[in-house]
Order: sequence, then C-alpha cells, then structure tokens
Amino acid sequence: MSNAPFKFHFRVRLRDTDAAGVIYFSRLLERAHEAYEAFLDSAGLPLQTWMAQGPRLPIVHAEADFSAPMELGTVVRVALKAARVGRSSFTLDYEFTTDDGAQLARAQTVHVAVEQGETAALPETLRDQITAILTQRRKGAKHG
Amino acid sequence: MSNAPFKFHFRVRLRDTDAAGVIYFSRLLERAHEAYEAFLDSAGLPLQTWMAQGPRLPIVHAEADFSAPMELGTVVRVALKAARVGRSSFTLDYEFTTDDGAQLARAQTVHVAVEQGETAALPETLRDQITAILTQRRKGAKHG
Amino acid sequence: MSNAPFKFHFRVRLRDTDAAGVIYFSRLLERAHEAYEAFLDSAGLPLQTWMAQGPRLPIVHAEADFSAPMELGTVVRVALKAARVGRSSFTLDYEFTTDDGAQLARAQTVHVAVEQGETAALPETLRDQITAILTQRRKGAKHG
Amino acid sequence: MSNAPFKFHFRVRLRDTDAAGVIYFSRLLERAHEAYEAFLDSAGLPLQTWMAQGPRLPIVHAEADFSAPMELGTVVRVALKAARVGRSSFTLDYEFTTDDGAQLARAQTVHVAVEQGETAALPETLRDQITAILTQRRKGAKHG
Repeated sequence: MSNAPFKFHFRVRLRDTDAAGVIYFSRLLERAHEAYEAFLDSAGLPLQTWMAQGPRLPIVHAEADFSAPMELGTVVRVALKAARVGRSSFTLDYEFTTDDGAQLARAQTVHVAVEQGETAALPETLRDQITAILTQRRKGAKHG
Repeated sequence: MSNAPFKFHFRVRLRDTDAAGVIYFSRLLERAHEAYEAFLDSAGLPLQTWMAQGPRLPIVHAEADFSAPMELGTVVRVALKAARVGRSSFTLDYEFTTDDGAQLARAQTVHVAVEQGETAALPETLRDQITAILTQRRKGAKHG
Repeated sequence: MSNAPFKFHFRVRLRDTDAAGVIYFSRLLERAHEAYEAFLDSAGLPLQTWMAQGPRLPIVHAEADFSAPMELGTVVRVALKAARVGRSSFTLDYEFTTDDGAQLARAQTVHVAVEQGETAALPETLRDQITAILTQRRKGAKHG
Repeated sequence: MSNAPFKFHFRVRLRDTDAAGVIYFSRLLERAHEAYEAFLDSAGLPLQTWMAQGPRLPIVHAEADFSAPMELGTVVRVALKAARVGRSSFTLDYEFTTDDGAQLARAQTVHVAVEQGETAALPETLRDQITAILTQRRKGAKHG
C-alpha cells in the first residue's frame, strides 16, 4: 500500500476572495472539503451516497493555519492525508502549496460517523480507503 | 390593507465582498433571500416549516441589477414587495438603498410551489401574507 | 472563426447546496462566474490582470432560470457564449446541462468596462476574445 | 473594567446550510467573523477602517468545534471574548449557544497586525477594546 496522499488542485476564484484581495479565511476550508469530496469520488464512495444511505460523516472539528496570502488566480495544490483512522472517526490533514511547492496553508478536519443521532462504526470500505492515505507513522509510534 | 413593503437591512460583511473591494454580485441575492426568510419569519410562516411539511417553494428565476458598488461596512436597506401572486407561484421584488435612500441595486425572485415534484397551489396562509406586500397596481392595469 | 462556445464543467459540491438538498440558487451564478474566469484564463486575459491594471469589468445585471434541481455530486456542463459585444459592455450567456445534454438551467451576466468610475471602452484584446464566442446571428439580423 | 463578552446573535439562514440540512461547517466561521465585525463596529473601529488605513488584521489560525447540529431557522447566540492580547496579535474565542444556553459550538480566530507585509504593533485603540473583552485569567496564570 502506497500511503501516498490524495492530490487535488484548484485556482483561487473571485468567489473565494474578499475585500482584502486574497482568499477569505474560511473558504480555504470549503476548498479542503472539495478535496475531500474529490477523494471520496475517486474512491468510488461519493459523499452523496453517505448522505443517502448513512452513516453521515459530520465534521466535529476543523482548523486552518495560514502561512501566506492566496491571491485571485493562484493555482493551489492540495495534498490530502489521513492523520488518524479510528473505529468511528477519522482525521484528515490538508497541505496547501503553490505550484513550486511553497507552503501556503494547512488544514485539518475531524469526521465522526453518525447513524440516527448515535456514533456508528465506520463502514469497512470507507475505512480501507482512508487507511490508504494514512500518513506513515514514525517507527516506534504508539499504536492507538 | 396597507400593502407596505417588508423592511429589512443588513451591513455588508467581509464574507459578502470580493477582491474588487465590494459586494460579490451573487451575494446580493443571498441577502435578498435573507430578507425573504425574515419576511416569512415575521409572517409566522418560516421557511423551515415549508421545508418540513411542504410545499417546497424553489426559485425558478432570479435576477439582479446593480446601480452602485456596495462597500464593506455599508448599511443597506431592503424593501421587499410582491410583484405578482398567482395560483401556484409568486414574484418578489427587492429594492436596495442606502440609509439616505440612494438606490444601490434591485433584485427579483420567482418562486413556484412544488409538492412531490409537481406544481402545487400556494397555501392560503402564505398567499394572504404575500398579498399583503403586493405592490399597488396602476389604475387600468390588466387583471392577470 | 469558429464561434464555438467555451466549455466548462463542475461537480455540485456540498458548499454549493442548501438544506433543500440541491444547489442554492445564487451559487449557480458563482459557478457561472467561475466559467467566465476559466474563459478569461484560456484567452490569456485572466481576471486578476483586469483587477490590477483596469478596466474593471463589474456586473451590472445577472439572471438565472432553473429548469431542474441540481443535486450533490451531479456533473454539470456549462456552455459559455457571448450574446452581445458593445463598445464598453458585453453580455454572456451560460447554458447548464447534464452529461446527457438535459437542460438544468441558464444564466446571463452583463459586464461594463469601468475606469476610475467612468464607463470605458473594452480593450481590443478582450473584445476579440469575446467576439470569438459570440453566438451566430440569424441571417438578416440587424447589425448593432 | 467589566471584561464582559461581546454579545451577538444570528439566525441560521438557507445560505448557511448544506444538503445535510444543517449549517455547513465553515459557515460557522463566517458567522464568527460577522460577530467580530459587529464588535469592531460597536467599538467604533470598523474593519473597513483597518482595510483602508492599516494595519491589516489577517487571520493566521482559525478553528471550530461542533457539539450539535444547527438547523435552518435556529437562533444562535454568540459570546465573543478575547483569550489573549499580545503586542502584535490577538486571539478571539466564540461560544455558540441556543436561546436556552445549550452549547452548539465554539470557535477561535487568531489575528496578526500586518503593515506592508511585516508584523506590526496593534494600534492602542484596538488593543484597549480587545482588552475590554479579555477573559479573566485564573490567579497565578503565567504572564505571556
């Protein structure tokens, strides 16, 4: 298993920007989510399927750190990795860079599987796909 | 019956703007819809009720004309009137002005009542409330 | 000159949708604008250039008609054509269809070139590119 | 000095929601920013002033934790406090609750004053206003 990150890219569009001339901070998280949806598509497990049949995969935590402003028209590369896969939740890391590899931002989302209002086990198909983009742990890392 | 328009106002917030420094064009329609939702609230017929029990009231046409740029922090007044109420649809007009009454923009949305994928009659309660903000027609106007 | 429309496509993402389960009406216009920005990119005249050096090309009119709901995950095809090119303004038409060619929606935006608050002539490079996607007029159509 | 939080409230509008029927995760951060803008307005230091005269106050970190879904039409109360005020940066905490005080979510934004691309000192007027909503530290808390 390669554990290579899932690659995505987007161009900063006018609707992503604000009056400061750069990406509006929380629209970076919209772009992160778009990368996550593209990952689910590529895995043959599109988000609309989970919406329809469950479990739902709501976000319980999201965060972003900004290193450099992202201007209108900039092509942004996204590398999507899993930082953790648990029984009923998973954590995704997003690295945003320029075409030249310069760091722009990073983000993280934590998702919990929910069925009829209760925490549920992650479906095995989804768990396998997320495990495939799980970041290599350092040797000796604690097993969770 | 007064046929006075429903009044709403908002302040242009950073999320409404884009890199041109003013409101991003289609966010004016988001603000128009917010005025429509506030109108439904004030009428005791909130949108979530229609979402839950039906009929749905999807927009089949929307348009906006822009007279002046709306900058971050500007207080915008919205006057919401009904231009037309039919058996199963209605048309809303929105006028956007400054505090001083200077025109900024106008918009229009056309809504059709839909039940299980089919056009449905407007509920009488909703029809009455929309009629209450119906613009006075000129004498001699054709009856539709 | 081919006068073929500019082609674009997108997938309806979660951020495009609302609690009715389909695309939020004005986000279709955001997608239309994204198609317009992609067109400018392909023409070598990206929007950020106009933002920086002028003229600005603000939208003075926008409209959309909705034929069918657009659900999460749907691939939407956009055909972008120019309906009119004037001395200082142009009108763009957008047709939204499914992969199978079924009509979903249409939209229109009208842009005016503005320099230091005054209407300005369209730069010739831009005018040429927009003319290249100008819809064929019927024979005998009046020359404007 | 009261150190009372700044109070804000909003109603979850259709544009805030997504196909899951509740607030789209990152729009909570848009609402947090709206509360921050309202705080700046009430302090007589509106965001547009900083945009125009500087320093800019870009967000370098943002995060949100979600406790309960926020449905269309829900009135959400926001309590805005400062968690930290430094020489050139400040950290804001947002608590989101129902009208009954039930917790819905929390968020945090970290802002850094920037002038011509360089970190700058916070203007004293702004620093004073943020200090006024600074959370009381526990006795013995480390001075930063």
